[in-house]
Amino acid sequence: MIDFDAFYKITYGLYIVCSGNKIKGNGFISNTVFQVTSEPPRFAVCCNKNNFTAGLIEKTKAFSVTILEQETSSDILGRFGFKSGRDFDKIEGMSVIFGQSGVPIVLNEAIAYLECNVIQTVDTGTHMMYIGELIQSVLLDNPKDPLTYLYYRQIKKGTAPKNAPTYINKAKQEIQKTAGSFKKYRCSACGYIYDEEAEKTEFKDLPSDWICPICGSEKSDFIEV
Amino acid sequence: MIDFDAFYKITYGLYIVCSGNKIKGNGFISNTVFQVTSEPPRFAVCCNKNNFTAGLIEKTKAFSVTILEQETSSDILGRFGFKSGRDFDKIEGMSVIFGQSGVPIVLNEAIAYLECNVIQTVDTGTHMMYIGELIQSVLLDNPKDPLTYLYYRQIKKGTAPKNAPTYINKAKQEIQKTAGSFKKYRCSACGYIYDEEAEKTEFKDLPSDWICPICGSEKSDFIEV
Repeated sequence: MIDFDAFYKITYGLYIVCSGNKIKGNGFISNTVFQVTSEPPRFAVCCNKNNFTAGLIEKTKAFSVTILEQETSSDILGRFGFKSGRDFDKIEGMSVIFGQSGVPIVLNEAIAYLECNVIQTVDTGTHMMYIGELIQSVLLDNPKDPLTYLYYRQIKKGTAPKNAPTYINKAKQEIQKTAGSFKKYRCSACGYIYDEEAEKTEFKDLPSDWICPICGSEKSDFIEV
Repeated sequence: MIDFDAFYKITYGLYIVCSGNKIKGNGFISNTVFQVTSEPPRFAVCCNKNNFTAGLIEKTKAFSVTILEQETSSDILGRFGFKSGRDFDKIEGMSVIFGQSGVPIVLNEAIAYLECNVIQTVDTGTHMMYIGELIQSVLLDNPKDPLTYLYYRQIKKGTAPKNAPTYINKAKQEIQKTAGSFKKYRCSACGYIYDEEAEKTEFKDLPSDWICPICGSEKSDFIEV
């Protein structure tokens, strides 16, 4: 038996993993960043092979990790989590420094960052795992708690993008029927659920310029569930 | 610059990772369990090469992961986190079932469990990373939140064992002096700090049969810091 709900009990944080350089940099939201050895400190990140950033890491042989604050805005999560760097420049307009390896490091809504040189690459199937030796780690002057995947799911009602290792295909699962006359609407881009009962506002009454609080998609991108 | 405090902003859970069989099984407390691909679901665990369980995973080619509840007792954390299976049978007396691969699965204070067959082994230096394909995952009838490393450190005042990827050698760091007349005592086995000011009881006034709340070491194993 495989019970997907058991997966949700595994604890993760949420990070921006970046690579590239000053000319072309990119990043994505990752929940799989973890320390694999203590001496020397080495960290691993997982990256879908289709992610634009995967190609940049392969080329640059380095990556940065931005540890996000708990109340990270939907602008940052939408920009880095639900859009592709093939389509637009995610780094432009962000507060960015460049590390010792030349990779961009995003400082928006950050509490700390790491920078690593890739020393091992592991093909795990749909994803690549990059193991990096730490070049630098910096704790920023931001006392907020780190954003966890649980907080993002429970409080921000977010879901994993299709390319995440933890993505669960909801179409394969039975959709729960809502009791009463309240309806729910799903963002077709990121899976965020707008629940009329919880929000105390009917979806049709939202202003036409209302956008998905997670990924910034337009109201017309929502489908009734 | 390497700021070790930045490491603490990475989010982890805490788990028991087990391997072996009915005749000889063993497990250890791990904070590095994570999903690496979604289709098919594959999970990775990191294990210090010196861990007794590492040898069992190499032989059995399978492992189980018990996802622990938030209020996991110091008995479980001490038994699996700060003692070696070379010295005593950690599995004996526990509530255990055996998985499809034959590995023990600990059910004490558990909210869910996974079982995986190892399909890849990665040498990351001091640690081995085992990547396993999921055989089964079960959500148990225990509604509690999962135990996180942050909760363990902040609420339970626990530290990482020497073999953990996230171990930080405190002897290398400056020990903060306590202001006033309150003293602090460190457990020489697990590093737990008894803080007289926070506990409102002088260490010398604790009963002689008092034990470390994390690993169960005796009062005499504490050293003033």
